[in-house]
Amino acid sequence: MMKVSELGEFGLIDLLARMVSDSQGNQPAPHQIIADIGDDAAAWRSEASTQLATVDSLVQDVHFTLSTTSWKELGWKSLAINLSDIAAMGGVPEYALAALAIPADTEVEDVAAVYEGMIEMAKQFQVAIIGGNVCRSPAVSITITVLGSSLNNKILRRSTAMPGDNIAVTGYAGSAKAGLEMLTKGLQFSPEATTYLRDAFLHPMPRITEGQLLIKQGVATAIDISDGLLADLRHICQSSQVSARVEVDRVPVHPAVRENYGDRARELALGGGENYELLFTGNAAVINKVKEEAPCPVTIIGEITAGEPGEVSLFDTDGNPVKIRETGWEHF
Amino acid sequence: MMKVSELGEFGLIDLLARMVSDSQGNQPAPHQIIADIGDDAAAWRSEASTQLATVDSLVQDVHFTLSTTSWKELGWKSLAINLSDIAAMGGVPEYALAALAIPADTEVEDVAAVYEGMIEMAKQFQVAIIGGNVCRSPAVSITITVLGSSLNNKILRRSTAMPGDNIAVTGYAGSAKAGLEMLTKGLQFSPEATTYLRDAFLHPMPRITEGQLLIKQGVATAIDISDGLLADLRHICQSSQVSARVEVDRVPVHPAVRENYGDRARELALGGGENYELLFTGNAAVINKVKEEAPCPVTIIGEITAGEPGEVSLFDTDGNPVKIRETGWEHF
Repeated sequence: MMKVSELGEFGLIDLLARMVSDSQGNQPAPHQIIADIGDDAAAWRSEASTQLATVDSLVQDVHFTLSTTSWKELGWKSLAINLSDIAAMGGVPEYALAALAIPADTEVEDVAAVYEGMIEMAKQFQVAIIGGNVCRSPAVSITITVLGSSLNNKILRRSTAMPGDNIAVTGYAGSAKAGLEMLTKGLQFSPEATTYLRDAFLHPMPRITEGQLLIKQGVATAIDISDGLLADLRHICQSSQVSARVEVDRVPVHPAVRENYGDRARELALGGGENYELLFTGNAAVINKVKEEAPCPVTIIGEITAGEPGEVSLFDTDGNPVKIRETGWEHF
Repeated sequence: MMKVSELGEFGLIDLLARMVSDSQGNQPAPHQIIADIGDDAAAWRSEASTQLATVDSLVQDVHFTLSTTSWKELGWKSLAINLSDIAAMGGVPEYALAALAIPADTEVEDVAAVYEGMIEMAKQFQVAIIGGNVCRSPAVSITITVLGSSLNNKILRRSTAMPGDNIAVTGYAGSAKAGLEMLTKGLQFSPEATTYLRDAFLHPMPRITEGQLLIKQGVATAIDISDGLLADLRHICQSSQVSARVEVDRVPVHPAVRENYGDRARELALGGGENYELLFTGNAAVINKVKEEAPCPVTIIGEITAGEPGEVSLFDTDGNPVKIRETGWEHF
């Protein structure tokens, strides 16, 4: 007998994904499934195009507390984190279904505020909210499913990184975790830093446009770094059976984090979860094209190598190995 | 300020559905949405066919308790209740995504059992489980999204009932609620009755085949009676702007319920929720064709009339009005 907490989230997902694929392996296959539980979103071939689907939940006192998160922010974020999985496939989000679980004494206007936040996020990317369910529950939780389609019939995978690829990341790493710490510890920063950090945690903007740009520029490999930059780079390395070198001083850290978190800024950037940035790999020419065209900062932080599958090594600017304490998102 | 418990589930869903449709009304519409939050499942037109999607949750100590439900039954039922919504559209289920929320000290084999139950149900109807998410939560909950497509590009609606239509129902009404009472009150019945009632509550079989038969026979109007027969007949009457007459003694009650619940059997049949039977309407010729072809009992229980929209009246065999205490599923 083993507890879920001992096996860990990734072990559990592997186990369940294996059960599902074993059960489906021997069936006649009317379904052309291209990607399933082991990628950012599921993908399958329909008559005309490649379809995408993803699901994710936010649970009260696990992923958020109502003392630091407004109901509207909760609605926004619950949809945004799912759109981020579509972004990580380079796809076009189209439809959303929301399942809301709430205590019976919740105020109606608070539930309406959740929907306001969701609708605001949905409008940014022309997503239609087509289904929903509301049920009673001791704690608040929101589970959203987003459906979409691929752009040009191509998708970004975790399994296609090649030795020699550059590794790049959009935006800044670690800001969400820094924002969470600010909120939970009641840290006092400048008004600008406070706004930036709060938004980084509660108001993430999924990189839909950037994911589609990656497809257009010929990038094949990407993931969103919702589990933390290092953890998600390891996911790419495991899926692609490659290893990676990261130059830690190149990892982009926002000034609001660098100035307020001192030595811990680097640790937050490498380990901090709930980052809805895209981490991607590709040859130098392709990555440079992306850098030129992207509407956000794009930073090269290392390269894919042919070492031990799944291994990520850290180096300083002089090429000396670095060890770092990780603070990735703990699911169980 | 109003609590969700005061507004009620249906009021809340109406409010949220209105917010969503208002927000989408003024947008350019790349999406051809045919049915949304107000029907059993969402439906939209894609390039080749009509697509369906539905989402539903089971929450610990609201919809089930682990003292009466096995983990495997939980997995089966969580998928079955969603397939029932596809059945109520007459559709073909194709894909499922499962979001599981569990305490960290849950046994891994219990989580695996949830998936075993889900996989067993999925195999019955060639549904592919393509996505999943597992997260930590103080209580167990499962939210499943099912995607499917329409049969012959037709779907069963709630809004198409016509005065003069017969009202019919598959199988037996009230068995699930009777099963729930047996389990929670520890009632002792014969082994056969115990097995039947336990299965009726924990092991429902979605009426996928029957829903598709309705489409083939030209039925236009159906709903699953998961909220209870009367409540769901009212949903049809409201959506269709018609009223209904039900002859209460014709409502089919299983012998295991009739023999063990005495006078309450009729009340359970009319009000009891978590019935995954189909309630449908159509002209006498169509309904008779369905009766001949259906692999399960089909019973005519009344007719659609042109009275007050949404009103359902009950009568005994002599045509005298009947009043009955309802025990429908209380969501809030």
